[in-house]
This record gives sequence, C-alpha cells and structure tokens, in this order.
Amino acid sequence: MLHISALEKLVHELSRLPSIGPKTAQRLAYFILKSEKDFPEKLSTALLRLRAEVHECARCFNFTDAEICRYCEDPHRSDDSLCLVEEPADIMRIESSGAFRGRYHVLHGAISPLEGIGPHDLKIKELIRRIDAGLHNESPAIKEVIFALDADLEGDTTILYLAKQLQGKGLKLSRIAHGVPIGSDIDFIDDRTMNRALQNRVEL
Amino acid sequence: MLHISALEKLVHELSRLPSIGPKTAQRLAYFILKSEKDFPEKLSTALLRLRAEVHECARCFNFTDAEICRYCEDPHRSDDSLCLVEEPADIMRIESSGAFRGRYHVLHGAISPLEGIGPHDLKIKELIRRIDAGLHNESPAIKEVIFALDADLEGDTTILYLAKQLQGKGLKLSRIAHGVPIGSDIDFIDDRTMNRALQNRVEL
Repeated sequence: MLHISALEKLVHELSRLPSIGPKTAQRLAYFILKSEKDFPEKLSTALLRLRAEVHECARCFNFTDAEICRYCEDPHRSDDSLCLVEEPADIMRIESSGAFRGRYHVLHGAISPLEGIGPHDLKIKELIRRIDAGLHNESPAIKEVIFALDADLEGDTTILYLAKQLQGKGLKLSRIAHGVPIGSDIDFIDDRTMNRALQNRVEL
Repeated sequence: MLHISALEKLVHELSRLPSIGPKTAQRLAYFILKSEKDFPEKLSTALLRLRAEVHECARCFNFTDAEICRYCEDPHRSDDSLCLVEEPADIMRIESSGAFRGRYHVLHGAISPLEGIGPHDLKIKELIRRIDAGLHNESPAIKEVIFALDADLEGDTTILYLAKQLQGKGLKLSRIAHGVPIGSDIDFIDDRTMNRALQNRVEL
C-alpha cells in the first residue's frame, strides 16, 4: 500500500510491537523519516545494545546487565522473604511502593493451559532449587514467599500449583491483597473486586 | 529508574516517538527483550534501510525510493490539476478515496508564525517554479491547484498566502470541502464544522 519497500518493511516490523497497529506504525515511520538525521541510527544502536547487554539475572531472572541483578546484590535487603512476580517489569511496580525490602524471583509468565504454558515453561524448577538451597544452609534461608502475581485466572492457577509444590518446606506463604484501589470511587468498582474486598475485610 | 543503562537508553529513544510516553516506551522495551532473538536486529535493519533508501521525490517532494515518485511517474495521471498537501502521508489518504487522478505537491508543513515556520521553510519556491515551468511550456501546463491542507489555522494561513502568490497565473484555485463527515451523527458535530457546512451548503 505504501509502495516504498523500505517504508513498508519498517511499518511491518513496528506493527509487531504491542499496542502498535498498522496505522500507528505508519505514523511512526513517517515521523522517523522526518526526524533528525541521526535518530534512526540512535534508535537502531539502542536496540542492538539492549539485546547484547541485557540478560536474565542468574539468581532471580530479573533483567540485568551484570551477572547478578541489583536486588540480589544489595546487602541491605532481607533474605527472609522472597517475592514472586510474573515479569521483570512487575518488580519496579513493587519497588516504587517502597513496601518490600526482600528478594525477588521472576517466573517469566504464569501457568496457562489455554496458551499451552505449563510449569516447565516457567522458572519454577529454579525457584524450588533456590528455596531448597536455603533449607540445606547452602544459602541464607527463605522464611516467607509472597505471591505478587496478576489477579487473573493464570495468576490464581500458578499460585495454587506453587502452594502445593512448596508445602512441607516450613515456609510462610502469602499473596498480596486484592480489593478496592486507594483513592477510587466505590461506585466504579467491578463485582469481582468488591466481592474480594468484602471477603478479605480487615478488622478495625 | 530502570537501573540498566542499555534499557534506559532504548526507553529514552523510543520516548521520542510521537504518542509514545515513557510508560509505553518501557513496555515496548520489555517486549523487545522478550521477543524472538532476531527481532531487535530486524527492526534495527529496517530503521537504517529507511533512512538510506527513502528520500524526497525531486519533483513533488513526496517520499520515494526512486528519483521520481510513482505519482509523478505515472503516465495515466492528468497533468492538468495539482493537489497541494502538507505531508507525504496525506497523499495516501487522498489516493485511497480514488477521487483524484492528477499530480501532487508536498509542502512539508504549513505556515505557522507561532512555531516559527514561514513560507521559506516550505516547498513553496519549488511549487511556484513548477507552475511557472508549465506556463512557459517547459513542462505540461497546470490548470487547477487544489488545496488539500489541514482544516486549521496553519492550513488556512498557508492557503491565503499561496492564493496571493498564485494570483494572475490563470490558474483555477480550489480547496477541498469542509463539512459534516459522511455517516456521522449531526448531534456530534462541533460548531465550527456545522458553521462551515451551512455556509457551503450545496444546492439540490
């Protein structure tokens, strides 16, 4: 449709990005054509550098450009509690709340039979090994595992599966609270959230 | 904030794209990190290829990867009428309507005193030269100039300026009609559009 092969190719590649449809991709490509001379090169260099430098942390599977990520490295964080998240980006969300000073473990997804994602596709084997190493005094012991997974079917399935796997290891298991978001209007809360907020009501 | 220099750099570059804020850029960068191994390279290659191969058409300033763009090249299009647009992307919009089979001229912007864009920043000198060449039989004569500029202050200013410049050259000047879009609910039309639609009412 654009009749310029190099333009069509870029639009095609940009369209593969999430939330970028063909129309937006086209607008971005035109913007890049009209941008400062060195912008495509800078963007291209940044893309290649990302893949060359960033990889998974050997311990928690967060993204890092070092051997071990900054949260695993930090001597001021507690080894007692381990927070499980689905994606590296989730760590930042938790960090910016300032309410957690333990360690992380990134599963890189959640169990989803519909999408064909089973326990073996996630960093679960590595999680068990990490917890067991603590139990055998090969590393500082983990006392609590906090599930900070998405509040959906996949998250719930993963929590059920892992709770079973972690049984009998003497760990305190917990999940982050679900309920009415702070600052929100009660009127706009969906049924499932309100249901959970009532079930998990906190005594005053 | 992301604490990984290569990731921060890519987020920074992606944030320079229109409609991509820091939050979206971050999401895109994480997607790229988790994408197929060759995606960053493909995207990077497409970016560099765009700038290397695509440039402005020597005649109408549309983007092309040839010397002359496909609309200037096409022998089946009429040389009689010339359609003025602000951006190369506007040509596609007009083409897909199928209502115009003449030639184009891309101004690459519109006059905007607020943004410091004057006539000399646009392809106006080139437009006048093109029209004059037709008048002096150096190229096929242009008989009508159609303004298909944006319906805003900048578009209107540019039309006023150009109408003056093109006076006395024996050209028919016109602008595309502004009014209520086809298929739209009268109830949702803004005052200025309705004003224009009433002013320019068409006799039955």
